[in-house]
Amino acid sequence: MNDPFFNNAPSDDKLREECGVFGIYDLDGGETAETICCGLIALQHRGQESCGIAVSDTSGPRRNTCFHKGLGLVSEVFKSETLSKLRGNLGIGHVRYATSGSTTVENAQPLVLNYVKGTITLAHNGNLVNAAALRRELEYTGAIFHTTVDSEVIACQIARERLTASTVEEAVRRAASKLKGAYALVITSPRKLIGVRDPYGLKPLCLGRRKNAWILASENCALSSVGAEFVRDILPGEIVTVTKDGVSSSFISSLGTKAHCAFEYIYFARLDSTIDGVTICEARTRAGTCLAKACPADADLVAGVPESGVPAAQGYAKALGIPFGTVFYKNSYVGRTFIKPSQSERENSVRLKLSVLKSVVEGKRIVLVDDSIVRGTTMANLISMLKQAGARSVHVRISSPPFLYPCYFGTDVPTEGQLIASSHSREEICRMIGADSLGYLPIESLSEMTGGLPLCLACFDGHYPMGVPKENIRNILE
Amino acid sequence: MNDPFFNNAPSDDKLREECGVFGIYDLDGGETAETICCGLIALQHRGQESCGIAVSDTSGPRRNTCFHKGLGLVSEVFKSETLSKLRGNLGIGHVRYATSGSTTVENAQPLVLNYVKGTITLAHNGNLVNAAALRRELEYTGAIFHTTVDSEVIACQIARERLTASTVEEAVRRAASKLKGAYALVITSPRKLIGVRDPYGLKPLCLGRRKNAWILASENCALSSVGAEFVRDILPGEIVTVTKDGVSSSFISSLGTKAHCAFEYIYFARLDSTIDGVTICEARTRAGTCLAKACPADADLVAGVPESGVPAAQGYAKALGIPFGTVFYKNSYVGRTFIKPSQSERENSVRLKLSVLKSVVEGKRIVLVDDSIVRGTTMANLISMLKQAGARSVHVRISSPPFLYPCYFGTDVPTEGQLIASSHSREEICRMIGADSLGYLPIESLSEMTGGLPLCLACFDGHYPMGVPKENIRNILE
Amino acid sequence: MNDPFFNNAPSDDKLREECGVFGIYDLDGGETAETICCGLIALQHRGQESCGIAVSDTSGPRRNTCFHKGLGLVSEVFKSETLSKLRGNLGIGHVRYATSGSTTVENAQPLVLNYVKGTITLAHNGNLVNAAALRRELEYTGAIFHTTVDSEVIACQIARERLTASTVEEAVRRAASKLKGAYALVITSPRKLIGVRDPYGLKPLCLGRRKNAWILASENCALSSVGAEFVRDILPGEIVTVTKDGVSSSFISSLGTKAHCAFEYIYFARLDSTIDGVTICEARTRAGTCLAKACPADADLVAGVPESGVPAAQGYAKALGIPFGTVFYKNSYVGRTFIKPSQSERENSVRLKLSVLKSVVEGKRIVLVDDSIVRGTTMANLISMLKQAGARSVHVRISSPPFLYPCYFGTDVPTEGQLIASSHSREEICRMIGADSLGYLPIESLSEMTGGLPLCLACFDGHYPMGVPKENIRNILE
Amino acid sequence: MNDPFFNNAPSDDKLREECGVFGIYDLDGGETAETICCGLIALQHRGQESCGIAVSDTSGPRRNTCFHKGLGLVSEVFKSETLSKLRGNLGIGHVRYATSGSTTVENAQPLVLNYVKGTITLAHNGNLVNAAALRRELEYTGAIFHTTVDSEVIACQIARERLTASTVEEAVRRAASKLKGAYALVITSPRKLIGVRDPYGLKPLCLGRRKNAWILASENCALSSVGAEFVRDILPGEIVTVTKDGVSSSFISSLGTKAHCAFEYIYFARLDSTIDGVTICEARTRAGTCLAKACPADADLVAGVPESGVPAAQGYAKALGIPFGTVFYKNSYVGRTFIKPSQSERENSVRLKLSVLKSVVEGKRIVLVDDSIVRGTTMANLISMLKQAGARSVHVRISSPPFLYPCYFGTDVPTEGQLIASSHSREEICRMIGADSLGYLPIESLSEMTGGLPLCLACFDGHYPMGVPKENIRNILE
Repeated sequence: MNDPFFNNAPSDDKLREECGVFGIYDLDGGETAETICCGLIALQHRGQESCGIAVSDTSGPRRNTCFHKGLGLVSEVFKSETLSKLRGNLGIGHVRYATSGSTTVENAQPLVLNYVKGTITLAHNGNLVNAAALRRELEYTGAIFHTTVDSEVIACQIARERLTASTVEEAVRRAASKLKGAYALVITSPRKLIGVRDPYGLKPLCLGRRKNAWILASENCALSSVGAEFVRDILPGEIVTVTKDGVSSSFISSLGTKAHCAFEYIYFARLDSTIDGVTICEARTRAGTCLAKACPADADLVAGVPESGVPAAQGYAKALGIPFGTVFYKNSYVGRTFIKPSQSERENSVRLKLSVLKSVVEGKRIVLVDDSIVRGTTMANLISMLKQAGARSVHVRISSPPFLYPCYFGTDVPTEGQLIASSHSREEICRMIGADSLGYLPIESLSEMTGGLPLCLACFDGHYPMGVPKENIRNILE
Repeated sequence: MNDPFFNNAPSDDKLREECGVFGIYDLDGGETAETICCGLIALQHRGQESCGIAVSDTSGPRRNTCFHKGLGLVSEVFKSETLSKLRGNLGIGHVRYATSGSTTVENAQPLVLNYVKGTITLAHNGNLVNAAALRRELEYTGAIFHTTVDSEVIACQIARERLTASTVEEAVRRAASKLKGAYALVITSPRKLIGVRDPYGLKPLCLGRRKNAWILASENCALSSVGAEFVRDILPGEIVTVTKDGVSSSFISSLGTKAHCAFEYIYFARLDSTIDGVTICEARTRAGTCLAKACPADADLVAGVPESGVPAAQGYAKALGIPFGTVFYKNSYVGRTFIKPSQSERENSVRLKLSVLKSVVEGKRIVLVDDSIVRGTTMANLISMLKQAGARSVHVRISSPPFLYPCYFGTDVPTEGQLIASSHSREEICRMIGADSLGYLPIESLSEMTGGLPLCLACFDGHYPMGVPKENIRNILE
Repeated sequence: MNDPFFNNAPSDDKLREECGVFGIYDLDGGETAETICCGLIALQHRGQESCGIAVSDTSGPRRNTCFHKGLGLVSEVFKSETLSKLRGNLGIGHVRYATSGSTTVENAQPLVLNYVKGTITLAHNGNLVNAAALRRELEYTGAIFHTTVDSEVIACQIARERLTASTVEEAVRRAASKLKGAYALVITSPRKLIGVRDPYGLKPLCLGRRKNAWILASENCALSSVGAEFVRDILPGEIVTVTKDGVSSSFISSLGTKAHCAFEYIYFARLDSTIDGVTICEARTRAGTCLAKACPADADLVAGVPESGVPAAQGYAKALGIPFGTVFYKNSYVGRTFIKPSQSERENSVRLKLSVLKSVVEGKRIVLVDDSIVRGTTMANLISMLKQAGARSVHVRISSPPFLYPCYFGTDVPTEGQLIASSHSREEICRMIGADSLGYLPIESLSEMTGGLPLCLACFDGHYPMGVPKENIRNILE
Repeated sequence: MNDPFFNNAPSDDKLREECGVFGIYDLDGGETAETICCGLIALQHRGQESCGIAVSDTSGPRRNTCFHKGLGLVSEVFKSETLSKLRGNLGIGHVRYATSGSTTVENAQPLVLNYVKGTITLAHNGNLVNAAALRRELEYTGAIFHTTVDSEVIACQIARERLTASTVEEAVRRAASKLKGAYALVITSPRKLIGVRDPYGLKPLCLGRRKNAWILASENCALSSVGAEFVRDILPGEIVTVTKDGVSSSFISSLGTKAHCAFEYIYFARLDSTIDGVTICEARTRAGTCLAKACPADADLVAGVPESGVPAAQGYAKALGIPFGTVFYKNSYVGRTFIKPSQSERENSVRLKLSVLKSVVEGKRIVLVDDSIVRGTTMANLISMLKQAGARSVHVRISSPPFLYPCYFGTDVPTEGQLIASSHSREEICRMIGADSLGYLPIESLSEMTGGLPLCLACFDGHYPMGVPKENIRNILE
């Protein structure tokens, strides 16, 4: 898993989503763990560090949950033998990239906890901003914690509320009203599947159905991957409860402000998903169209950085009537990048992963589109490769605004010093990456991109939808 | 690990101890994890299912503990690479055979928990009789549990008491006063190493020293294996605290009755250990002497079942002036037994592990000594092998009384139906195993064996030192 | 590796190339094994079942070769620790998909053999048609064989010839003159790197240079991946020898007929390679152009089956002036397909891997381009998915002629019964896969596609460039 | 397997046997691989580095052999899943400690080779002294070699002879007549099981029977472990052939001189074996008796170094009428020694493995018996431990003569510089190890020990039974 030569990590020049969640209550029983496994494979882009599945049987005793968690990809952690031991009709799963708590198997999710009413399991996408304060309060009344993830704080708070609440949903509602931050949760109690979305709707969660099974998932691409129909998005602030009698809803609070994470549309979500009514594929193509209007270029060919830049590149090309083409071949067998000390070796690693289609590029003026620039190192390599292959000029277009502020809601952002846009002007960046011109999507276009959906744009403009702490909160519980 | 052909388990015809614990606070720093690892290897006979080590640095922040746990033997779970990552000067370790909670890596120890005062780690040898009641109480005030071991109940109780106690020792003392059952505990708080022994002294625990390091261990064989000197046994009901300023003591209660587990002397403890002033090797030889007096035999040769029956056999032989000899060769490369369905295959597995030295046995009248008979199946095989090899007669002598009652304090006992002695007379057993005569150590001799030490003899006479539950308490928390 | 749930195998509805080879002689020494490893990762598309690397030091004794082979992908078999043990300045590597000999680590290559002149290593891409006869001859003079691959026959023949040949090249030349079939070989003797290509040029092999290192590789994409310059293709029938004094050449025979494998251009070779002067990317785009001329369609959108159909789709779209678009999202985290018994499950596995971008497809008349149809099952699934997503019509265009005859030169072809084209007419296939129309590239266009290069078209027209056996020769040596 | 902290290797202060072989032809079919596996576990003391099993079905085609080999112990390499894939009624197995060729899985045995008459498999115990010359001859006539073990030379020679010999036995006979050195071989051809023993009888081999199955094994302990009856030892120079019609014999040559390896009786063979009519257990006890006569001691207690010194200690004690006792406890869970750089750490590793039973030792004059002294380091540690525990004096008695000359027949001997006896007098060694006196078994007593059996005593007196090379032949083929 952790090899000094090959490395599991995705490119360190990308922002990273932290998690994906999936839950199912199948009234007909059936291969629940296998279904969750397929759902997690469809959500794997949301987290590649660890994953886990917990299942139970609603007709069994209150504490009959079995689970398996591990470090690595779903296809590495779950073999058929393991899946065959996870039997039940109610279960949840999780894929994780660590933004809170370090990467150990102990911090993997779902959490499986025993409390007064039996076993509850919980999987969490998002990040709390008041986790440390909540944990301190709980500890001062005798709580002990096994992990360093904020999700355990949520679980413990629910257990506390359950002592006086009449139902588990009520306990979840009371606990949620104390949480500050971003969260999409899937929870099981002995006889229920529960989904929760924070009042701002920062993180996505949707409901699907397959015959007599109800499903919750971070994105609807996970629904189609298991042959389920999309029913609807969970509303911001909504608590959905699935029991054997069907689906019911309640709400955390009457808060009106919504703030959906813009980066889901720009980069995180899968191209074939639709979140809160916006089709990702269309949003990204539209971003390309807006980008063409705002920063046109006189060029022979428009190409996208694989895979993330392709849809915006197609939109950009169409809007300006310039041919779209493929200029890079991507070797899918690399998978894990080489870690080597020197900068020259890092360039080499890009060359192993991507190579230029020289005959396409030679003598051409090229527009190269990507969704974002974080450190700028990969982009500099790509431009240098295109020029070596004979490109006359390379105009870089980015389908999002410059990334300037840290995220407190679950997106892993390098420290500010490493964000190229936070310390350099557009002109400087253009020179540093060796481009002939550089254009960003104007922040105003984001609304057009998502059809007017209310967005959290804090990473671009610093306006956080709620108060945020001053210090870095990553690993604050360790 | 879990192979249907080879099997990790020790012979299922033996009683099993559940755990061994080890702790160290090394004021000079140094290779703490390596020392714990060596200590656990020396205690491996006390538990082979899982093991773990947790270490921290007393000069670091309150939550800087790192740990590793796994299923299997110490030498399988801990490789040098893993050990090199466990850095610190304060740490504990655990080897486990599951008597409470199922065998999963989640149930492995030490437990590593965060609470209001930082991280505490805990390793437990023994079994509580009131764990279910205590857990229920804790859950009713909001506690959540990650495992199904009673040890987590102890840890949670300590965290609760710590809210109002002025020191962690005081919290441990208050928690301990609520525990009913057998326990030897090693605990660390951010700056302290703590050892606790239940008021009956059912489970052993001792203190050692190596230069500026203080060590706690289940048996003193673990002290010599790491080059430490034995200082003294922890007293029943004592709480020992090691800080950078030295060692101090307090007591749980003034309870006067002691009840040391007799099976430590008969079988569990390592031959080179000394527990509560009684040298195991001498105790077992004395058991042989007593056995010779109580049940002499007219024979040409006295032999022990390897390894456990050898010391008593030597005592028996010497007492009667009959030559002692070796009649079985034991193949140490088998290690793990074959699991095969049929009875004939099970006999075969004994043959792979042990073989008779025919030239020694031929034409002889043999006394075969073992420490106990549980199911009787292995003994029957051995007698049959001796007779096939030409033994004229085989007289079986057992260096303990018949095993009749279940243990609630941490010894794994087959259900009563499988205990041959609980449903058959001595004559019947003798016939069933094919022996020419069968003799047990009289229960009165146990006191002579241990030099008058007060013992728990409940498994022989049913007189438990405290009230015990009526139902089977194994896995009661699951 | 071999899990009944996840499966390593690429789609079983594709033809498979059997092997890729790579060799290097670095006069400056350096990280030879790491370079070979990078080269093999670039050639991984040519074989995913097993791989291996063998290196030696030309300044060391004649038998100082070290090697490592294993089942799985290069990134699974070679970790940095393994690579660091493979030290030397001369070495070869191999990736394999088994067409001859079964998939066991014993059959993995390179072969490492000791003979009278020291150690030779050999890696082979291709398949002999007279391997069985040659092996029989060798056995009748006392040879023994450790593997069931035809490559060992080549090595043994070389060793035999070496007894009377004055140099290893001469031995290789004499051996090669007895081989019938397809082969591209990289060979090392203690002080030489040798490359050989069969007289028809069926399999590709090229020469590159990086500073003082000479490199041989199946495709030039492997050269650029290691930062080397392409020098030239090895000629059909050429034997290239690299020594410390440079590169020299000799020829197997004066045979004039060439027959380059057409499938390299259609599917096998990597998009960024150039083989025998023909740029793969251009050839495939041209195939799309020819296809457009031969089988136009009236449609709203042209799309390719990812990844293999995309370049031809772009050529097709451009030729007819229809927009090119992306209609499928491919989940790269699946990697290994689910093996499940029922047909319905197999469809499910496609759904996990590919999903339709509904918003792109809805209401459109679509041309779907792929490079070939083998069994037809995958294509049927894709068409059904497009229609479910609202496509008005789906016109399938294949950028190669129908595949009708078996290949004896190293391409793995399903038995004739499974080849849909060998037993069904175009109309029947169109109906079976549910397409609205179906068009193939005319066989005459292949020459245009590759700019007049002489091709082996036996799989399309049954005209083999040399005599071939009547029976199935797969696994003939077992 | 290869961990820098734990180490697989047995104590490096012992001589090591290189191999054990096992073969079976079961006319009734049945679980052949499982039987071989059990047999190899019984022979594991003869080699712990690698092992392998090859089986075939005599009713199948000539090349239907399947096999599995790996590094490690039998119980690590063979899991039930692997065994279940090895189906057949004819097979052989091998355990190996490398004396010729390095420790790689390629050098593991059995060798599985295809030649003109089908597949032959071969497993070899022993070492040739003319392997290099034979290999050179074979290479000069075109042979290639995959391994660096001399056993492959034997197999290749057999294949050559088979070209003109009318039967495989005849080929084996002709090949054997060219071999110089020690060898016990088990071989299978498509329909035969063959056993061969060199004319001196240096290495043991015996024949057994279980119903309709014939078995060959290095020692008869492997026969009883699989429930078979011992039939007879294979004679020196004998070739035994088992076919479906029964067992027949032929002979290599009429050579009269026999020279059985003395170290089999002193240390290598298992205590419960009988080789060439001499019962190991009796031989070792007799060695103790002779030692008592030659070097008596005035002492309170006689003890053996576990396990190897125990039988001789019992003989020594009985002869002098001094009580025999156990003074060391051996921890069987260590298994693999710690490798640590410093000498102090090496002493620590002994302490982890062995501990003194202080109460037995205190105040006593002790005779400590072992079978041999190689480097002397372990013995020095043991004496120091005994003295620290209070022994008044420690008299060391060795049940073999001093080891002075290298072995060329398959026993791994440290280079002469490391043999303490080859460079120091008895008095010096006694002082170096800290003993109060030191006595060796006189070389004349070896004949008494083995009842007059003709022995190879070259390691003690330098008289080799055949001419031996001047240089070190270990790894000569690499």
